[in-house]
Amino acid sequence: MTYCVGLFLEEGLVFLSDTRTNAGVDHISTFSKMQVEEVAGDRVLTILSAGNLAITQAVWSRLQEGVWLNGERHTLRNVPNLFHAAQLVGQAVRDVYAADNPALAQQGIGFDCSLLLGGQISGAPHRLFLIYATGNFIEATADTPFLQIGEIKYGKPILDRGVTFATLLPDAIKLVLISMDGTLRSNLTVGLPVDLLLYRRDTLHVALRRRIAEDDPYLLMVRANWSRALREAYQAMPRPDWPLA
Amino acid sequence: MTYCVGLFLEEGLVFLSDTRTNAGVDHISTFSKMQVEEVAGDRVLTILSAGNLAITQAVWSRLQEGVWLNGERHTLRNVPNLFHAAQLVGQAVRDVYAADNPALAQQGIGFDCSLLLGGQISGAPHRLFLIYATGNFIEATADTPFLQIGEIKYGKPILDRGVTFATLLPDAIKLVLISMDGTLRSNLTVGLPVDLLLYRRDTLHVALRRRIAEDDPYLLMVRANWSRALREAYQAMPRPDWPLA
Repeated sequence: MTYCVGLFLEEGLVFLSDTRTNAGVDHISTFSKMQVEEVAGDRVLTILSAGNLAITQAVWSRLQEGVWLNGERHTLRNVPNLFHAAQLVGQAVRDVYAADNPALAQQGIGFDCSLLLGGQISGAPHRLFLIYATGNFIEATADTPFLQIGEIKYGKPILDRGVTFATLLPDAIKLVLISMDGTLRSNLTVGLPVDLLLYRRDTLHVALRRRIAEDDPYLLMVRANWSRALREAYQAMPRPDWPLA
Repeated sequence: MTYCVGLFLEEGLVFLSDTRTNAGVDHISTFSKMQVEEVAGDRVLTILSAGNLAITQAVWSRLQEGVWLNGERHTLRNVPNLFHAAQLVGQAVRDVYAADNPALAQQGIGFDCSLLLGGQISGAPHRLFLIYATGNFIEATADTPFLQIGEIKYGKPILDRGVTFATLLPDAIKLVLISMDGTLRSNLTVGLPVDLLLYRRDTLHVALRRRIAEDDPYLLMVRANWSRALREAYQAMPRPDWPLA
């Protein structure tokens, strides 16, 4: 499995993805699930992917080669805005479905694929989308400023409680790392290292792209600090005064 | 769906279950998922259930009526220890499967049922089991002192971090309420009120059984306190010193 999260914030966008893929518990590998298309001054587009690796890699390869949409061949380097980029990714997903699903279905394998796409293109606002295996998509808004794919449940409560559209980028980094760390701890199919990318609105270049490994001092600090804070928080909470028999 | 959790602690056992059942989003009802068999001075047995309500209610009804096992009819009121109780519950599950699964399967409905069973019977230790839809079961141990059924993922990170075999009962109440509250917040199919039961080892009577509703002052305190503690904890954490472009 996989855990990927994207935040859509007033200040910009934050992406975090793990790198574990597994086909059974004895076939585990490390693959980045983050792809970035950056043309400084013009566009930054980030894609995170979850699902069957053969499918998500095929989607990315097709996007690199160019995808036919409305009679023309497009890549992420020439779409005019994020909505068109999401359509293009959706079309790539549908093309892979058309090419590969008959063979997958014959062997009883589902078409498992979901993607986060976020970024900004010159002259248009920054946006964040979740693209389904069916090629259609939803968009994050100020009301719901985060989207997740893969093993989303473990890390959702902290995002539900912590993330708002006004969350500042440095706090956002902490929140996605906490969300990821809880998931890593509770689910073996999500694994380190993780890939982090920060984009600041209207800058049109990547602010930070960083691979965070097991021995990363900041990750270790977040982990230790958070575990201690949780322990202290519940211990400090008053006990119920319910009478015990 | 459902969320139920049971803790197996040196001091005793803690059980918490929600009460929401749903067949589609427009058919939502409140049903307790906690059943208790108490004979003070002799035994306390608690069962929490998740899955198809018709199946779990049928399991409980059969347990009340008596289940044939090894040529004799048994109920939870006459089994000699928790292992036999778990076998009895497993047999009840298998009996319901034999009676109902052909009709369910004809209409493409899975046999969805899992149960937690914990307690103590005079002369034997306190124990906690998770019984699967197949009627076999696993047992909590000092290494893994909690078991969950239903929507288990949202509330697992806090238990992974907080619960040990040595956790004291008052702290355990806080931890299961925090685990439940995160789940309630992130998943609509888990709903208030919740049912809490506390059992202290070797007492052979229920220490506390309490229905906790939306307006329960202690639940409201836990909720507010925890949200504030999480917010303060991540805000107090140092920011990364990674250089931003």
